[in-house]
Amino acid sequence: MSSLRGRDVLSAFDFDREDLFRLFELAERLRGEISGRRVLDYARGKVMITAFFEPSTRTKISFQFAMTRLGGEVVDFIEEVSSIRKGETEEDTMKILDGYDPDVIVVRHSKPFFPHSVKDVVRAPIISGGDGTNEHPTQALLDVYTIWRELGRVDGIVIGILGDLKYGRTPPSLSYILTRFNDVTIYYIAPKQLQIRDEVLRKIEGRVRYHLVGSVEEVIEKLDVLYVTRIQKERFEDPREYERLKGSYIITRSMLEKYRKIPVIMHPLPRVDEIATDVDTLPQAKYFEQARNGVFIRAALLKEVLGV
Amino acid sequence: MSSLRGRDVLSAFDFDREDLFRLFELAERLRGEISGRRVLDYARGKVMITAFFEPSTRTKISFQFAMTRLGGEVVDFIEEVSSIRKGETEEDTMKILDGYDPDVIVVRHSKPFFPHSVKDVVRAPIISGGDGTNEHPTQALLDVYTIWRELGRVDGIVIGILGDLKYGRTPPSLSYILTRFNDVTIYYIAPKQLQIRDEVLRKIEGRVRYHLVGSVEEVIEKLDVLYVTRIQKERFEDPREYERLKGSYIITRSMLEKYRKIPVIMHPLPRVDEIATDVDTLPQAKYFEQARNGVFIRAALLKEVLGV
Amino acid sequence: MSSLRGRDVLSAFDFDREDLFRLFELAERLRGEISGRRVLDYARGKVMITAFFEPSTRTKISFQFAMTRLGGEVVDFIEEVSSIRKGETEEDTMKILDGYDPDVIVVRHSKPFFPHSVKDVVRAPIISGGDGTNEHPTQALLDVYTIWRELGRVDGIVIGILGDLKYGRTPPSLSYILTRFNDVTIYYIAPKQLQIRDEVLRKIEGRVRYHLVGSVEEVIEKLDVLYVTRIQKERFEDPREYERLKGSYIITRSMLEKYRKIPVIMHPLPRVDEIATDVDTLPQAKYFEQARNGVFIRAALLKEVLGV
Repeated sequence: MSSLRGRDVLSAFDFDREDLFRLFELAERLRGEISGRRVLDYARGKVMITAFFEPSTRTKISFQFAMTRLGGEVVDFIEEVSSIRKGETEEDTMKILDGYDPDVIVVRHSKPFFPHSVKDVVRAPIISGGDGTNEHPTQALLDVYTIWRELGRVDGIVIGILGDLKYGRTPPSLSYILTRFNDVTIYYIAPKQLQIRDEVLRKIEGRVRYHLVGSVEEVIEKLDVLYVTRIQKERFEDPREYERLKGSYIITRSMLEKYRKIPVIMHPLPRVDEIATDVDTLPQAKYFEQARNGVFIRAALLKEVLGV
Repeated sequence: MSSLRGRDVLSAFDFDREDLFRLFELAERLRGEISGRRVLDYARGKVMITAFFEPSTRTKISFQFAMTRLGGEVVDFIEEVSSIRKGETEEDTMKILDGYDPDVIVVRHSKPFFPHSVKDVVRAPIISGGDGTNEHPTQALLDVYTIWRELGRVDGIVIGILGDLKYGRTPPSLSYILTRFNDVTIYYIAPKQLQIRDEVLRKIEGRVRYHLVGSVEEVIEKLDVLYVTRIQKERFEDPREYERLKGSYIITRSMLEKYRKIPVIMHPLPRVDEIATDVDTLPQAKYFEQARNGVFIRAALLKEVLGV
Repeated sequence: MSSLRGRDVLSAFDFDREDLFRLFELAERLRGEISGRRVLDYARGKVMITAFFEPSTRTKISFQFAMTRLGGEVVDFIEEVSSIRKGETEEDTMKILDGYDPDVIVVRHSKPFFPHSVKDVVRAPIISGGDGTNEHPTQALLDVYTIWRELGRVDGIVIGILGDLKYGRTPPSLSYILTRFNDVTIYYIAPKQLQIRDEVLRKIEGRVRYHLVGSVEEVIEKLDVLYVTRIQKERFEDPREYERLKGSYIITRSMLEKYRKIPVIMHPLPRVDEIATDVDTLPQAKYFEQARNGVFIRAALLKEVLGV
């Protein structure tokens, strides 16, 4: 049987179809075992380093919770109180941390491909917690886990991915992981200047069906899932352009209720104003559940990578 | 028998008289059990989140120590490396943290009533670690625990509360908790512009005796306890006013030694210069002991709230 | 038998010869026990506070790893989110932390002799993690442990210490600890304005042989160990002076390969550019191994100080 034991996880492509279903089942099992809010014993004696060179709430805390629930130890490397200030290269930092013999290192960095650039000098398995605009593979993992839980399947779904598709790292990873499922259709919903990058499309070509569209209204009734991401003001050269466009990419309850069928609404969080808070109480709003799922699926991933 | 199991602790009024005596006894018992400096097993498998949206030394570390001594796990949410910067609302942050299934969340915020504003969307019990100028209920709890240990009783005491009573959150909480005891007299000692707020007095009216006075000298010989708080320079519009007044609110050894009876001296800490360091060695100086008591009484509180 | 149980460790002189060999052997034993990457049980129930009033990567994380591997608990006091901002003295902070009954406190501060200044008000054993330009005793401990592992002995070695010897805290501590060994020769290699301080030389006078030299080339073939430290630009009043000198104090592979015998190359890390990265793959480059050794020797030290 296949396993991710000792493997680096740097891209959503690092999960094959078999890995994904195995992790979904394991996450369900761990969810049950943790449900008494108990700390388990699987990772007893194991140590995870979180090395986040860029701020994060959910990803870091989610991994810390996952490891704590597995019974393991966490040592948090905090960049702001580190020797980076003294001019040390981040490769040296990673080598030093690796020398302490952690069982796994979760790393986030604002530079695309940073984890790839250090993996050969680091003996511990590295799990990427996001690398710049490139990828965020464990976000994609919890996204498809959430879809699988909500719809009972990922094969055959129609999903709209809305927002800043050009600079976000979540849309590429989600696209890549969806290639592991059969018969998936993706609608990329964004203004032209924020549409998904060609390099992403080249990697999924022929493996999912996709369409680029400019507004959510034109496709919403076809969707099983609407995946919303933030449009960042600072991406626009002209602030008026942002003001003109942002309204088209804000999901409100009254907008949703115009349609017969409301898709499952997801969001990687944090959200600012791209989903109005009146949406939160709709039964289809699953973004907080999605964040919560992250603990269980990351616990499953850690359990496999640690080989425990 | 009554218990705080699963309850939020947002105000000093959340403790009734029976709760307080039960917590005092439990804190004494835990003090004994911890005295071999051992980590106990009560909270084994339980996880506490500390979510301090405002800096703190003693409160956060004190809760972390209490939980660690009970054998539980701590996950620290640090605002400065979080998504708050990205514009996420703090209500969303609390909902996400709650989704990770912590057994309790200790929250501090600079906004009065912040914990109250999120309690309905958070399933885990919330313990307030201070909310702006409103309250600091666990500080009040350790304050009365310290008085009970030092004097053998809280009923019937005469206490002077000195300093910035208008903006401090400790004086209100201490006042509220003292209403749970019989026959207490409070002297509020402050310059007029920093006297205790009317809304606080309205809540204790008829439940304790109180007097507003302008200087410590006029009442010191009546006091069993002198509770000193800081006067913050930045509260004064006119810096000369601060300079003129501050001397009247500084406790020195030579000042204290003019009196036949020196009361128990307490302070929520940190102190700046409102208690001269030569006071520290007086047997009546109990502020470091008071900080230390915080670990035991918070351990007692956590044990009750966790129901372990 | 002698032991460091309950002792403060503030200076490299706090280790006598017998302590050092005992700690080396204990570190080797712990290395073996940890090698399955297991968390041991020696410090179960013990709590260490790390109180770093100055940033650090390796020292703090190394102590946290050591304590975690021993099975103990760590509570990290982070200055930046503390009441220091409110004007509290650091002596008060240390007294409060001590009141929480930690089993040991590891403290770093930018002020020389800060740990000494608080040791009489702190009941827990204090281990210095570096005090300004004064000392860094546990760095010296891991340095001689590394030499002992690499050369099989410390007695009789010839070592060159290169770089900013005037302001660095590592060169003094290393010099002091070397006095515990027999027949050691130290070459202090630095430009005149950065040579080792007279007060350091007075303390080692007659206990090791030493020579002050201006360039590494004139002594390199005599050395068993070349210990490189950083030259900090900001130490020079005239930037041109820095630019003129820095080249003489940079170790490159091509420079080293001019000599018949290459010494063991060490560095306390972080390094900036004083050792070129092409040196890293030489078999004599031991600085990452040296950082790694820190976990084992600090675990040995903690085990002794805790008396477990």
